[in-house]
Amino acid sequence: MTISTVTVTGMTCGHCTSAVREEIAAIAGVTDVEVDLDSGRVTITSDQDLDQGAVKAAVEEAGYQITGG
Amino acid sequence: MTISTVTVTGMTCGHCTSAVREEIAAIAGVTDVEVDLDSGRVTITSDQDLDQGAVKAAVEEAGYQITGG
Repeated sequence: MTISTVTVTGMTCGHCTSAVREEIAAIAGVTDVEVDLDSGRVTITSDQDLDQGAVKAAVEEAGYQITGG
Repeated sequence: MTISTVTVTGMTCGHCTSAVREEIAAIAGVTDVEVDLDSGRVTITSDQDLDQGAVKAAVEEAGYQITGG
């Protein structure tokens, strides 16, 4: 199991966190996603090596940006 | 056809406007809903007398509040 964190900017409300959570949850191997609206910190639990490119693509698909790991 | 406007507070992003739009669009007789995020102004087109109580309930169901007509 691996746990990764990224910081996402642009989220303003619970709908935003849901959109990010749902997109990231759809990535292969992801078993849990925690999103903190205030900090933008997203904690991703995966049962295989996490594809960082897929995470970036998922966040952008939701309409937001990653600023850092 | 009647056109009504209400002002909704608490919307912060496009997901918020979509949530309000969808709830109000489900009210009997409503044919169009325009939501302006910056002003909070919601313009509702209806083909029958609009139930203001239903509009208030719809906005609250979406998680927001009406402040004025």
